[in-house]
Amino acid sequence: MAQREIQSLDPFFRPRSVAVIGASNDPLKAGRQITYNLQAMGFLGPIYPVNPREQEILGLRCYPSIQAIPDPVELVVLIIPSAAIHATMAEIEARVRARGDIKAIICAAAGFAEMGTEEGRERQRVLVETSRRLGIRVLGPNCVGVIDTRGRIDTTFVETLLPVEHKTRAGGISFLSQSGALAVSILMWGTSRPVPLAMNKLITVGNMGDVDLLEMLEYLEHDPHTRVIGMYLEGYPRARELMTTLGRITRKKPVVVLKVGRTEQGATAAHSHTGSLAGADRIYDAAFRQHGVIRVGSLEELMDTLQAFDQLPLPQGNRVFLLTQAGGPGIYCTDILSSYSELRFASLSPAAREELARLLPPMAAVCRPEGYADITASADKHQHARSVELLLAEPTVDGLLLITVPPMFLPPLELAAELKAACQRAGQEGQQAGRAVQKPFLPVIMAGQWVHEARALLEEAGIPTFETPDRAARALANLVRYAEFQSLRRAGDIGAGV
Amino acid sequence: MAQREIQSLDPFFRPRSVAVIGASNDPLKAGRQITYNLQAMGFLGPIYPVNPREQEILGLRCYPSIQAIPDPVELVVLIIPSAAIHATMAEIEARVRARGDIKAIICAAAGFAEMGTEEGRERQRVLVETSRRLGIRVLGPNCVGVIDTRGRIDTTFVETLLPVEHKTRAGGISFLSQSGALAVSILMWGTSRPVPLAMNKLITVGNMGDVDLLEMLEYLEHDPHTRVIGMYLEGYPRARELMTTLGRITRKKPVVVLKVGRTEQGATAAHSHTGSLAGADRIYDAAFRQHGVIRVGSLEELMDTLQAFDQLPLPQGNRVFLLTQAGGPGIYCTDILSSYSELRFASLSPAAREELARLLPPMAAVCRPEGYADITASADKHQHARSVELLLAEPTVDGLLLITVPPMFLPPLELAAELKAACQRAGQEGQQAGRAVQKPFLPVIMAGQWVHEARALLEEAGIPTFETPDRAARALANLVRYAEFQSLRRAGDIGAGV
Repeated sequence: MAQREIQSLDPFFRPRSVAVIGASNDPLKAGRQITYNLQAMGFLGPIYPVNPREQEILGLRCYPSIQAIPDPVELVVLIIPSAAIHATMAEIEARVRARGDIKAIICAAAGFAEMGTEEGRERQRVLVETSRRLGIRVLGPNCVGVIDTRGRIDTTFVETLLPVEHKTRAGGISFLSQSGALAVSILMWGTSRPVPLAMNKLITVGNMGDVDLLEMLEYLEHDPHTRVIGMYLEGYPRARELMTTLGRITRKKPVVVLKVGRTEQGATAAHSHTGSLAGADRIYDAAFRQHGVIRVGSLEELMDTLQAFDQLPLPQGNRVFLLTQAGGPGIYCTDILSSYSELRFASLSPAAREELARLLPPMAAVCRPEGYADITASADKHQHARSVELLLAEPTVDGLLLITVPPMFLPPLELAAELKAACQRAGQEGQQAGRAVQKPFLPVIMAGQWVHEARALLEEAGIPTFETPDRAARALANLVRYAEFQSLRRAGDIGAGV
Repeated sequence: MAQREIQSLDPFFRPRSVAVIGASNDPLKAGRQITYNLQAMGFLGPIYPVNPREQEILGLRCYPSIQAIPDPVELVVLIIPSAAIHATMAEIEARVRARGDIKAIICAAAGFAEMGTEEGRERQRVLVETSRRLGIRVLGPNCVGVIDTRGRIDTTFVETLLPVEHKTRAGGISFLSQSGALAVSILMWGTSRPVPLAMNKLITVGNMGDVDLLEMLEYLEHDPHTRVIGMYLEGYPRARELMTTLGRITRKKPVVVLKVGRTEQGATAAHSHTGSLAGADRIYDAAFRQHGVIRVGSLEELMDTLQAFDQLPLPQGNRVFLLTQAGGPGIYCTDILSSYSELRFASLSPAAREELARLLPPMAAVCRPEGYADITASADKHQHARSVELLLAEPTVDGLLLITVPPMFLPPLELAAELKAACQRAGQEGQQAGRAVQKPFLPVIMAGQWVHEARALLEEAGIPTFETPDRAARALANLVRYAEFQSLRRAGDIGAGV
């Protein structure tokens, strides 16, 4: 895609002004929620609600029509009955002919081609063809809109019931979805974590009447704030082109994909949903592997892996160490780690092994088996922190997992503060690309509400935490997988004289 | 195990009185937490804290020694340094010789055989041999104790930071664990759900110095309040006996096992932890299948499956229907359901299909594919409820999954109230054994905090809810698996003329 075309997507994420056609004062209407979300996100430009029956919406002056807005409008959000599309597009056309200002439309309204009716298809044609004539890009129809935490834009009608500061936080994760509900769920789970998932952009493409998945993917490729791309995929008609693009992107940043339609039944359901073709899943799977795309098996793995890529450095190798304060959860996690052929258990140097045994309680099981230490429930916060620090500095370890189930005599918040300090000493905190000594550290502090604040303390310091041992193990395996792909590709490039 | 021996375990769960040797006023000591938990659980008999340095603990009179307690003591909880075990057992012996009252000891203290030292083994010998001489049963040492929601006993030192009424609620799930930390984590996750997991008993066996896993399993076999048994298992020396017992129990009630040590590395770690033997996992796996034990792959699956068995009726067959309000999550779930060879997608009768299409929005995709309906985001609460009711009454459906991601214009609590009413009309609420028309209904209302109250409303009515589509799918598959095992076994019994 040419640079010019990519730039045509900018107004979706950093428009100078937004009009909401179909804004409302009714708390059960999406038109009110969209206006509210734009305000709540702290959008810096003017917001123009449009509704002929209202004077004011959420303290903003409301306009009877798009024509009546005196100042320039760059982005329009449409949340109108689809039957009104002809009249609305006529007004938009009149305005643009006169003022040339509107550059992008997000059509959140449904009732278009997804209906499977001729009427629906015709309405979508009117929306898209009018826009194209006017040089306006259209996202949707039948989409949930976009969120951009840095552009301070939220055109979704998602109600999270949360104070604004807990809704999301700026990070490097961009999520691109062929399902609005799935994107919304990721957002809602994200906001229910100890600290919200660190999002950059959230994009739902709906019917892809104009802007499609591939264009948005290329947009994210060039977006400097996107450190990792997540994608929910049912299928894409130009699959070869998609794969070529993915192969190019994964040289620069990781792409994590939840691709559905693995099974025949699933593929049939996907075909009903977005018209994606059945039967191609094995081809997708092989292409993902070839192009270094990380394919995940569950929603949890998707979220955890995105967070790990956003916040952790890539491992330099595949040698992992598991430090556990609790036998059962540790053994459980060992089974999961062992099931990944990509991973090896680290073999400590004799000096490190001795040092670790020295600083742990006498009953600790150190390196039985290799790459594993049960520090036992008698380990205090200092023993936790010192063993973490030792292993982060140990050259025979590429990635470190910690499992701990703090009992009542080890207050989780105090433990977290010690762990944070240990990471800081090891140069781990707020990990960014380009740090000198760093390796992924994945703590699992269990369980539930009892450790919520402790996890929040680490997460606020840029150290991701994980809900269960297996979730951390899967995220670490995906980091190793991508790191190995990158290093093999570099080796291949060198070998081919590139 | 003889009836007499089983009865010898009663004092762990419904003692007339409890003494806590090593009780404390120090908020960071387990001896205070145990006393607090006993009180908070509403234990009906007297609680006697024992500590020579305190007059009163948490408003209770504190005794300088076990000897000084004037009234009968049935259960003793020991939370003392292991070095004090000789003196403590001497006092217990003196008391029992004189009064013959103590029947059971829960030794929560650590520092015994698990240390791997001769000193530790000797201390455990003193604990166990003295007790045996006196006819006292011992749980532990090095265990986290027990919880019994009906006996109102909680001898653990778990701090959940929650008000008592949210800590747990009486239900039919009993969980037996070879890992204290894992049992504690299950409890803590359980209390962090929309409504706490409905527990009957929680038992950690620690070093199994006297009472062992198998005895407790037999106790649960005969416990009328235990509807389903959950177990965390590393290994058991008399594996054949364990399997015979399991095979007998699964005729009466389901047993759900998380068995670790699947891999060589995991087995080695398990051997370090509880001395369980490596290499036998495949044998365990085959025996579990043969004996109708449901083996689960993750902590989440363990909890979800226990909840499903406790609250849902067993399906009469394997034909499942998936009703989804959201395309993406529905397709995702279809893939998971399809991956279970035990399940089939239901094929509705033409009448039911027509009726379903009639009551849903026009753009709904009904039975494309079979056993699947996408009711779309435009489905209102009545359309949700009516389609659920229709499918619960439909004889071609054995189990029903619902996925819904309520948008802001469909308030989750209102939706939940309609779903609850639909279940009541279909005779689903508070499902108990022996109901006439009933089938498992597994709703997934997404996601996070936004739907917390809605899920709580259903759960309080006895309808389990699930965090993600795949978690519900796995639980349903396990219900079907056990139901099929039961029906094959019955068929086999009849064939063999039994």
